[in-house]
Amino acid sequence: MQIYGDSISGNCLKVKWAADHLGLAYDWIETDVLKAETRTPAFLALNPAGQVPAVILDDGRPLAQSNAILLHLAEGSDLIPADAYLRARMLEWMFWEQYSHEPYVAVARFQVRYLGKPVSSLDPKLVERGNGALKRLEDGLSGGGFLVGQRVSLADIALVAYTRSAHEGGFDLALYPSVQAWVKRVETALKIA
Amino acid sequence: MQIYGDSISGNCLKVKWAADHLGLAYDWIETDVLKAETRTPAFLALNPAGQVPAVILDDGRPLAQSNAILLHLAEGSDLIPADAYLRARMLEWMFWEQYSHEPYVAVARFQVRYLGKPVSSLDPKLVERGNGALKRLEDGLSGGGFLVGQRVSLADIALVAYTRSAHEGGFDLALYPSVQAWVKRVETALKIA
Repeated sequence: MQIYGDSISGNCLKVKWAADHLGLAYDWIETDVLKAETRTPAFLALNPAGQVPAVILDDGRPLAQSNAILLHLAEGSDLIPADAYLRARMLEWMFWEQYSHEPYVAVARFQVRYLGKPVSSLDPKLVERGNGALKRLEDGLSGGGFLVGQRVSLADIALVAYTRSAHEGGFDLALYPSVQAWVKRVETALKIA
Repeated sequence: MQIYGDSISGNCLKVKWAADHLGLAYDWIETDVLKAETRTPAFLALNPAGQVPAVILDDGRPLAQSNAILLHLAEGSDLIPADAYLRARMLEWMFWEQYSHEPYVAVARFQVRYLGKPVSSLDPKLVERGNGALKRLEDGLSGGGFLVGQRVSLADIALVAYTRSAHEGGFDLALYPSVQAWVKRVETALKIA
C-alpha cells in the first residue's frame, strides 16, 4: 500500500496510526499541501478531489477520504466494534468529526501554525465553533474511557488527530479536562505519545 | 423507530428515503430548525449536537448524523455493495459529501430559500466551492450509471439530497448534464420523482 500524506495533517496521520496499529505494511509518500503537491495532474489522477490522504491499495486501486480509508483498512479488526449499535455510534462520531470539529479545530490550527495568523485575528465564529466542538467532546467523555465501547476505536483515532494539536490553533485544552485525559489514553493505546 | 427531521432538510430526507426504500416502519416527528426546535432541552437530551436528523431506534436508543443513520439502517441490504472496495468507495463519497458538498451546496440553498438572501449576495467562495463540488460530481458520473457499482447505493442517496435542490441556491444544473441525468435515475430508483 502507498499512503500519500502530508505529515502536518491530522487527517493523514489518522491513516498512518491505523495502519501502524493494524500492522499493515505501507510506503509513505510525503505530499506537501503548502507546495500544492495535491494539485498536480499526477495527483489529481489519483484523487480528483485534490486532497490528502489518498492511498493506493495493494491491488493498485485508489481510495481517498481519511475516514473512509480508516473504515476500509480496519474492517474486521478490533478498531471497529462488533456490536451493530456501537459501530453506528462510532460512525456518528466520525461523520460529526468531519462536519463539526475538523472545519473549526483543524482550520484554526492551520491558519495559526502554517499561515502565521495571530490567534487574536482568527474569525471569532471559527473559535466559537471550535470551542463548541471541544465542549461536545468533553460532555461525551465525561464518563472516562473511550468514545464508544471499552477500547480504542476508529472514532478515537479520527477525533484525537486534531484534538491533540488544538492548542496550536489557540484552543486551551485545560478547559476540557476529560478531553485532555482521553487524549493521553488514546496516545497510549496507539503508542503515539 | 422515530425519525426527528425537518422536511426542508436534505439530510433528513435522506433518512426518510432510505427507510422507505428498505420498507422500515417509522414515525416522522417534524422538528422545525428555523423555530430552533433542535435547541430545546428535550431535543438536546436526544442529540447533544442539536442537529436533525436524529432517530430513536426500535430498542429506544438514539442515533444521529444522517450518513451514520443511513449506514446503520441499511446494513446487510442492497443499498450497501457487498464488495469491500465498492463499499469503501461508497464511504469515500459519503464523507466527501459532508465535507466538500453539503457545506456549500446546501448552505447556499438555505441562505437563499430560507433566509431570503439574494443569490447575487452569496459569498463568492461559497458559490465557487459549490460549483467545484458539482463539477467533481459531474466528472464522477460522466460514465453514466450510479456513483458506485451497478445499482443505487447510499452514496447516491447521500449526494442526491442537496444536488436535486441545488437550483434553489442559485446553482445551474444544466451546466452539469451527467449530474442532471443521474438525479433523474436516482429519483426513479428511490421513487421520489
